Amino acid sequence: MTTTVQSELIAAIRNIPDYPKPGVMFRDITTLLGNPRAFRRAIDELVHPYAGTKIDKIAGIEARGFILGGAIAHQLSSGFVPIRKKGKLPHDTVRIAYSLEYGVDEMEMHKDAISPGEKVILVDDLIATGGTAEAAVKLLKQMGADIVAACFVIDLPELGGRKRLEALGVNVRTLIEFEGH
Amino acid sequence: MTTTVQSELIAAIRNIPDYPKPGVMFRDITTLLGNPRAFRRAIDELVHPYAGTKIDKIAGIEARGFILGGAIAHQLSSGFVPIRKKGKLPHDTVRIAYSLEYGVDEMEMHKDAISPGEKVILVDDLIATGGTAEAAVKLLKQMGADIVAACFVIDLPELGGRKRLEALGVNVRTLIEFEGH
Repeated sequence: MTTTVQSELIAAIRNIPDYPKPGVMFRDITTLLGNPRAFRRAIDELVHPYAGTKIDKIAGIEARGFILGGAIAHQLSSGFVPIRKKGKLPHDTVRIAYSLEYGVDEMEMHKDAISPGEKVILVDDLIATGGTAEAAVKLLKQMGADIVAACFVIDLPELGGRKRLEALGVNVRTLIEFEGH
Repeated sequence: MTTTVQSELIAAIRNIPDYPKPGVMFRDITTLLGNPRAFRRAIDELVHPYAGTKIDKIAGIEARGFILGGAIAHQLSSGFVPIRKKGKLPHDTVRIAYSLEYGVDEMEMHKDAISPGEKVILVDDLIATGGTAEAAVKLLKQMGADIVAACFVIDLPELGGRKRLEALGVNVRTLIEFEGH
């Protein structure tokens, strides 16, 4: 990826100081999604390494991972499977608990969403501490998925999420980085 | 659309009896989304009437409308704007209240998500009573959007949602219908 594309994507992100709490700079991807050129560039850049590979499923993490994951699934002619907060999927699920800053939460997938050996790309908008993504990776592995990559538009490298996923043997692809959190 | 395509899409939907409550047949679109061929067919069928039109924004209703809307935005090279449950968007919003079966809820969009006169397609997976979609249409109109169409994969015509949107002057496009609710 050229630095020109990176500059364009960075310029399309809205920075919101002190959100959701004082001292945090929130990276708002909605302005990038709303910009037709930036949105298309982000999707095309994320997926071009996989254009020659048969990817069976794109697994998107609720909720912003649904937007990017839907676009990627369409681009690669893959199926899309949602990873949702607990209690939102209508059929039999597999579930995993994970830690948040305060307390724990659970995420779910349908039991039949992925067959063992299927090639899967995990998608979310941003990787920070990687707690959510790590739980998603564990859930996918439990289902027998062959995780080809985990893709995120934004990386906050100081928070260590990328290293956490790489320690699980996952290939991580991100497009732009921001300092701090 | 040929009946062959419709049959294929109907076959890809999972029917779950008595969900979320006794007497209701839930139409589960996740099996269609997870099927690469059915997912691509659904997106291509939904958007082909607009292939020659410049569509500025796809407005997707949280959460399943994000998956379909992301794919449609990518296909039409449009921007994507999320319509979210209240309290989930990080910047200044416009908000509208709407009635649910029990009580009321509110949905929001970012104030700067759409400029007056922009051509917008509203997207969700299913239209039933149309309460959520009607609120979304009102919110989009309040922002000055030129609503080109409202697109849904599934219509439950007995529940009257399509007529409710058409009464607001909205062109409604759906792919498959189911009886009952």
